[in-house]
Amino acid sequence: MAITVVGSIAFDSVKTPFGERERMLGGAAVHFALAASFFEEVRVVGPVGDDFGERELDVLRKRGVEVSDIERIEGGKTFFWRGEYGWDLNSRETLDTQLGVFEGFDPKLSERSRSSEVLFLANIQPELQQRVRKQLPEARFVALDSMNFWIEQQREPLLSAIASVDCLVLNDAELRQLTGRPNVVSAAREVLSWSSPSPALRGPSVVVAKQGEYGAALVTNESFFALPAYPLENVIDPTGAGDTFAGAFVGYIAAHPAEELSDELLRRAMAHATVLASFNVEEFGTERVERLSGEEIVARLQELRAITQFSGD
Amino acid sequence: MAITVVGSIAFDSVKTPFGERERMLGGAAVHFALAASFFEEVRVVGPVGDDFGERELDVLRKRGVEVSDIERIEGGKTFFWRGEYGWDLNSRETLDTQLGVFEGFDPKLSERSRSSEVLFLANIQPELQQRVRKQLPEARFVALDSMNFWIEQQREPLLSAIASVDCLVLNDAELRQLTGRPNVVSAAREVLSWSSPSPALRGPSVVVAKQGEYGAALVTNESFFALPAYPLENVIDPTGAGDTFAGAFVGYIAAHPAEELSDELLRRAMAHATVLASFNVEEFGTERVERLSGEEIVARLQELRAITQFSGD
Repeated sequence: MAITVVGSIAFDSVKTPFGERERMLGGAAVHFALAASFFEEVRVVGPVGDDFGERELDVLRKRGVEVSDIERIEGGKTFFWRGEYGWDLNSRETLDTQLGVFEGFDPKLSERSRSSEVLFLANIQPELQQRVRKQLPEARFVALDSMNFWIEQQREPLLSAIASVDCLVLNDAELRQLTGRPNVVSAAREVLSWSSPSPALRGPSVVVAKQGEYGAALVTNESFFALPAYPLENVIDPTGAGDTFAGAFVGYIAAHPAEELSDELLRRAMAHATVLASFNVEEFGTERVERLSGEEIVARLQELRAITQFSGD
Repeated sequence: MAITVVGSIAFDSVKTPFGERERMLGGAAVHFALAASFFEEVRVVGPVGDDFGERELDVLRKRGVEVSDIERIEGGKTFFWRGEYGWDLNSRETLDTQLGVFEGFDPKLSERSRSSEVLFLANIQPELQQRVRKQLPEARFVALDSMNFWIEQQREPLLSAIASVDCLVLNDAELRQLTGRPNVVSAAREVLSWSSPSPALRGPSVVVAKQGEYGAALVTNESFFALPAYPLENVIDPTGAGDTFAGAFVGYIAAHPAEELSDELLRRAMAHATVLASFNVEEFGTERVERLSGEEIVARLQELRAITQFSGD
């Protein structure tokens, strides 16, 4: 099932204790699309400015990502983010954010993008997420990411958006903030209890709590699953790890439509997501994932299984 | 192989968002001993004051813990800690610490305690840890815990103590602080490279990084293993969780001497440790572990395996 992703396409200037990059390709939709492209056809929807060139588009095209709904705004500037990470990469400071063409963005989806059976609403204004959701009423699997800013500033629209999707992907601290519940398991169960007022929309049946360097947890009404992050001695740049995780998670699910969201499918999707995210953080921005191979994914997946297994008593 | 544990025996006054307790039985050696007692004979070494009564000793005796090396100091007061946890239990503030009989404590080990083949040096002054370590030169497995205070204030004695043990058990933030390495895997590998100047002592071959609500990781020269925490919707009091974890980890290893620290043994020990810690936090202090049964441990162990498994592609 093809995937449409709506979200930011950006230039990121990033400094970590291990180096820095100026205006590298980034943004949630980009990281998501590159990761998902290992599993399914991906269509990216989002705005860029005059400063966004063929070189950037080629990064996506090379991975087979459909870029015709990337809208170039004449005279506009691409979304820009500058940030710096602390010594253990667990804290980061935003030094500059320039919305550029994202200000006043009104997503326009081509017929092709609207025909996707899977939709990912990356972290953007909740009202835009809702508007896009309504353009794909028949989508079979819809997932959504958000952030603390929208939880604080746009709570009601965000709750409506969440009630219209199948899967919420959020950092664990944001999941606590969203629900007011201090415990991640009970916070996830709270989200699972939210349903849409419209019977056509389903309300979330899957919650993924991203835990950064600690891994991620998956909560459904039937099951709980947790995976540690793949152990790396050298993490260079965590930017985009969460979107890469989401891209592989959603991408893997989209590539296996027959299984109807079985617990086993969701767990394998979590494992693939963990592996893709681990590659993402090994280098700056999209550098590592751009040249990633399917063989490398399979090899690391086997290692991930090995480091999480234990036998009976 | 019987276990000797040296560490604090305390009264804890704890407030969490879910309730509070005044002067309940606590201390690293107590939590450790109760957990380890499910697997092996445990001998506790540590000082208490006049205020420590038969009721407290009975909690340990009921679990078969050997208490004859608990030294009662006439006119002294038992170590006391008062703390309060934040809303999500991930932060805590120490409101009062009274060393009492711990000030000037000089561990005296009976012949029986010195004959144990397994030793746990709970979080106390590194020089005391070293002194005790020398009294069990023949011990087959020695593990050590410490904390940020000793890393900052007594770094050299702590490094000497660590070089004299087989296993370091530490919170992941403390492991970073100890080694100056921002990444847990590389921090653990750094510790594994430390060896003792005395050939009779071995230097650490096992590092356990405790990660609180996220679980724990195990690093050896050959292997990496990580487990999420057992998912609980209601965590009441995290006090003693780390010592309970260590008690079950060391206890399980002590109960399986034939396997010579195989990777498989260490992983099963991690799983048992995760399970015991999960019971510990379900109620205040030692309340839950006091009435825990072997059947409950086995049942939760099976659940833990179920929530961490995923199949091949």
